[in-house]
Amino acid sequence: MRTTVGIIGGGPAGLLLARQLHRAGVGCVVLECRTRGHVERRQRAGMLEQGTVDALREADAAGRLDAEGLVHRGIELRFDGERHRVDFPSLTGGRTVTIYAQTEIVKDLVALQLAEGPPLLFGAEAVAVDRAESTAPVVRFRHEGRERALSCAWVAGCDGFHGISRAAFPAGLGRSYAHVYPYAWLGVTAQVPPSCEELIYARSERGFALHSMRSPSVSRLYLQVPDTAVLGDWPDGRIWDELAARFAVDADWSLRRGPVVAKSLTPMRSHVHEPMRHGRLLLAGDAAHIVPPTGAKGLNLAVSDVRVLARALITLHRTGDSQLLDRYSELCLQRVWQASRFSDDMTRMLHARPDGDAFDHRMQLARLRRITASHHAASELAANYSGLPLPV
Amino acid sequence: MRTTVGIIGGGPAGLLLARQLHRAGVGCVVLECRTRGHVERRQRAGMLEQGTVDALREADAAGRLDAEGLVHRGIELRFDGERHRVDFPSLTGGRTVTIYAQTEIVKDLVALQLAEGPPLLFGAEAVAVDRAESTAPVVRFRHEGRERALSCAWVAGCDGFHGISRAAFPAGLGRSYAHVYPYAWLGVTAQVPPSCEELIYARSERGFALHSMRSPSVSRLYLQVPDTAVLGDWPDGRIWDELAARFAVDADWSLRRGPVVAKSLTPMRSHVHEPMRHGRLLLAGDAAHIVPPTGAKGLNLAVSDVRVLARALITLHRTGDSQLLDRYSELCLQRVWQASRFSDDMTRMLHARPDGDAFDHRMQLARLRRITASHHAASELAANYSGLPLPV
Repeated sequence: MRTTVGIIGGGPAGLLLARQLHRAGVGCVVLECRTRGHVERRQRAGMLEQGTVDALREADAAGRLDAEGLVHRGIELRFDGERHRVDFPSLTGGRTVTIYAQTEIVKDLVALQLAEGPPLLFGAEAVAVDRAESTAPVVRFRHEGRERALSCAWVAGCDGFHGISRAAFPAGLGRSYAHVYPYAWLGVTAQVPPSCEELIYARSERGFALHSMRSPSVSRLYLQVPDTAVLGDWPDGRIWDELAARFAVDADWSLRRGPVVAKSLTPMRSHVHEPMRHGRLLLAGDAAHIVPPTGAKGLNLAVSDVRVLARALITLHRTGDSQLLDRYSELCLQRVWQASRFSDDMTRMLHARPDGDAFDHRMQLARLRRITASHHAASELAANYSGLPLPV
Repeated sequence: MRTTVGIIGGGPAGLLLARQLHRAGVGCVVLECRTRGHVERRQRAGMLEQGTVDALREADAAGRLDAEGLVHRGIELRFDGERHRVDFPSLTGGRTVTIYAQTEIVKDLVALQLAEGPPLLFGAEAVAVDRAESTAPVVRFRHEGRERALSCAWVAGCDGFHGISRAAFPAGLGRSYAHVYPYAWLGVTAQVPPSCEELIYARSERGFALHSMRSPSVSRLYLQVPDTAVLGDWPDGRIWDELAARFAVDADWSLRRGPVVAKSLTPMRSHVHEPMRHGRLLLAGDAAHIVPPTGAKGLNLAVSDVRVLARALITLHRTGDSQLLDRYSELCLQRVWQASRFSDDMTRMLHARPDGDAFDHRMQLARLRRITASHHAASELAANYSGLPLPV
């Protein structure tokens, strides 16, 4: 097989890149190691920055998003028995965010790609990227029981944190920066209308809790749990009781309970690999960097990488100009580090550290109070949450 | 001896309180355990918020401050080979800070008090506060070899972190919140004109450094050192070399060296005691709370406490209304916690942690870069540094 851009990974990053390249006439092939059913069921993020919505619209892939996405104009911070709303439009000059599950974006992009091309191979497991430093890299993969090779001019590694793309960088090229937070998230999806209109970020001495939603009839909730937690210790009743205790605020508010239809544990960590390029192999999204989910930045960073990468490859294809491609890593990483910082700030401000003392608790409360008291502090939160400017 | 307000401690808090009470006709006596020479030589802070300058002016104690104080309109942040100025007036609606050493404020207040009263006893060591919960508390103290007693209506504990006032609170009344940072500051005073017009806060992988000044001919410089450091390991040459390495930025800038005339080590810690009042004993300044010096908040918090306390006692004296006094602790602590938070933020952003890894370094750089890139982030720094609104 031969194409211009070989794309490893059929998550939102790989699929959006493929769609943008295809619409611009740049040939590409997507290799996804899982089945279609699997990728369409993976529960992931659901908060889209304005720039992410815009990128999906530009790719003519936002039809259902525009019809079904929930536009949110703020979030609620809940702490110390108080509720405070952070209003995004008034703090950012009109910006909003949109709630629409990543899994729905994947369904939309898969359907478009299968209908209009380019080729998308499910069950195609990339095993190596050869000759990335040459002008003719090759992706070797297994498909339908056979070893195959995809010859390309460029390879886009969109295969996530555990993928083979980053591992194909030579040892000693660049550097990884990593941090593991000493707690995890227990996430549940419940068939019950959300108990709130906007997301609630709750800090309590019992730990962090987040009330989010997938649709007007499906709630998505998260609990901080120890990083040693196992799902078997968390029957539904215990989860609801703990959520109710952490969100508890006043008699006017109560948590609606309903059937739990999915339950998962997410470790909390940061990872950034610099640079994001080795020869003709370019990383995008989780393959290059992950953030703790508190800032809701993972999917949005992947889309902002892909936006730069698509423009760079299309420009090269049309004009032969490689300047944007040469700056790809640098342009993306500035935004990646700022999103990592914001995710780190939100994570530390809202979670109870297992080794935290009374002073730490008071510092968290002082940070939260400052956001509620200061226009500049609230504006910083709103600007980062709704999304810093895109690199290009 | 008998007075209305017994003031323990003749530092800036106790002396300013005494001056304000005296000018309003409220009797008071100041007990200072050290000699006049000692208190006038103690090297301490030197950055005054606008509100601190205003409080000294209101007390008619700002003559020399207004003549000799250096008005500063910003600070420099130096990191990763870059220099960035944070301009206070444009970010805060016109606010500035003033460089004038605490020791000079003490000299001014001592001279005024000895000339105009009220009584100020040097070498008067308070040993206990009796019957603080009654309407007739007594401060027992030693003076000129004798045990004496000062009977008061109110006692102001302005005797610093190691004083007896906080220790006079009954065990179990209130709570202390404490944090020790895993490094210290080595401070030097040098007879050399400063190498900068405004303060430089430098973050380097070698550790933090601060270039400050006492006057146009006297520099004051600080180095982050291990909390186990001893002065004997830091001859002048090593100090200058290390300062030069941490401030190094480009060929246009160099550090002026000169004779070191004072050298000291300062531990880095936070401490807040809640509440700041027990019966008729009221704490102010370091007696109730200390902050790491990175935010230059210690002296300014002491003055803001004293401003509230003086108003509260004067109001009570004039009208019998105790409402402000009853809210003293609550009013002060809101600002104390915000100053502790800001000091914690500045400290963590600028110091190299002994256990810090490469990810921590990049987070620090991302925070500093955000301040240089975002109007809101820079405005937050400027607002906190130049001083949050006073409680009353």
